[in-house]
Amino acid sequence: MSGETVKLLGHWASPFALRVIWALKLKEIEYEYVGEDLPNKSPLLLEYNPVHKKIPVLVHGGKPIAESLVILEYLDEAWKHNPILPDDPYERAQARFWARFVDEKCMPSIMSAFTKKGEEKEKAAKEARENFKILESGLGKKQFFGGESVGFVDIAAGWIGLWTRMVEEIADVNIIDTAMMPLLESWFQRVLQVPILKECLPPQDKVLERFKGFHKFLTGGSS
Amino acid sequence: MSGETVKLLGHWASPFALRVIWALKLKEIEYEYVGEDLPNKSPLLLEYNPVHKKIPVLVHGGKPIAESLVILEYLDEAWKHNPILPDDPYERAQARFWARFVDEKCMPSIMSAFTKKGEEKEKAAKEARENFKILESGLGKKQFFGGESVGFVDIAAGWIGLWTRMVEEIADVNIIDTAMMPLLESWFQRVLQVPILKECLPPQDKVLERFKGFHKFLTGGSS
Repeated sequence: MSGETVKLLGHWASPFALRVIWALKLKEIEYEYVGEDLPNKSPLLLEYNPVHKKIPVLVHGGKPIAESLVILEYLDEAWKHNPILPDDPYERAQARFWARFVDEKCMPSIMSAFTKKGEEKEKAAKEARENFKILESGLGKKQFFGGESVGFVDIAAGWIGLWTRMVEEIADVNIIDTAMMPLLESWFQRVLQVPILKECLPPQDKVLERFKGFHKFLTGGSS
Repeated sequence: MSGETVKLLGHWASPFALRVIWALKLKEIEYEYVGEDLPNKSPLLLEYNPVHKKIPVLVHGGKPIAESLVILEYLDEAWKHNPILPDDPYERAQARFWARFVDEKCMPSIMSAFTKKGEEKEKAAKEARENFKILESGLGKKQFFGGESVGFVDIAAGWIGLWTRMVEEIADVNIIDTAMMPLLESWFQRVLQVPILKECLPPQDKVLERFKGFHKFLTGGSS
């Protein structure tokens, strides 16, 4: 089965597609990349993900899988080599817990800080800081969430420091507090030094420009 | 490892705790149940789930696991017998996809129909119906989401029909449309006929009373 063709429908600026690219690279899986134009989604994307109509979608041997965390688990199960989840059931549960925490708590609070104004923006930024502090407790003193090497949570969240720095710059807000979350802040740097992750990052100036346009559209130009 | 003691911190009316109870029963795992008083959460709950401070929490050999879907996967990995997820990686991905869909799409739209009023309530109910119709496409003509027997999605969502009927009664809203979703409606019935699931259901009159109080609190008594 793992010999069949693999295609990824993604978007160059999407951190969710980046998760899948990172996993494919780390697992050394050959794939074809199809970049989507999100305002004009392709018939292929609508066919392969009729439920959410969103990238990323992985297509393996003609069969589509949607939702980035579901795709990561699929890759790890369909290709056993270079595992991204640990063997131990308890450690696997912890990895799933923290990846969910990133999507359900960290991301929404950062997005709120990006899109809200005034007091609401500050409130969201405080919440985002608190969430990062909690996320730090999952990392502890380890090099990576995966331990000595990059694992599931590192792949799920490795881009979030860089991404938050852009939010801070554009929305004029403070989220990453080095004194409050020194271990996490150090991980933000460390994880993107990993060559295989670093080399897949999209051009940061282009992402920043895109973010700026998005912020202007959402807030009417003010912060 | 599977010989160590298992404890479940739950609440009698919680469908998320019910997921875990169903999985424990289906996998024939002995466990001790600890019912939480949610307005006065126990120090044990706060210690075991400091991040979300929510039930359910499974404690296995002294180690806590939170988040109901994460717990289901843990149970299936730590106890290999009576599997609740299929073997095939693609089918496993599909099961995870639909369980997420229930939590991220179905549940919020049903909750909206329960808590909103007037036009907003009707809009949420329409969205909930559409989500159920989409969920039905994941079931298709199978007996259960798991195929011939109850699996991951059945455990994750088996209570949702019963629960939605209560929402409909209390909020005076129509969500389950038998003509629109005949296969799903028939599954709502079928899944709760499975003896091991049926016998774990909390007393429905008590759940209804609790729901009514909750609705009154949230809406100020009107619908």
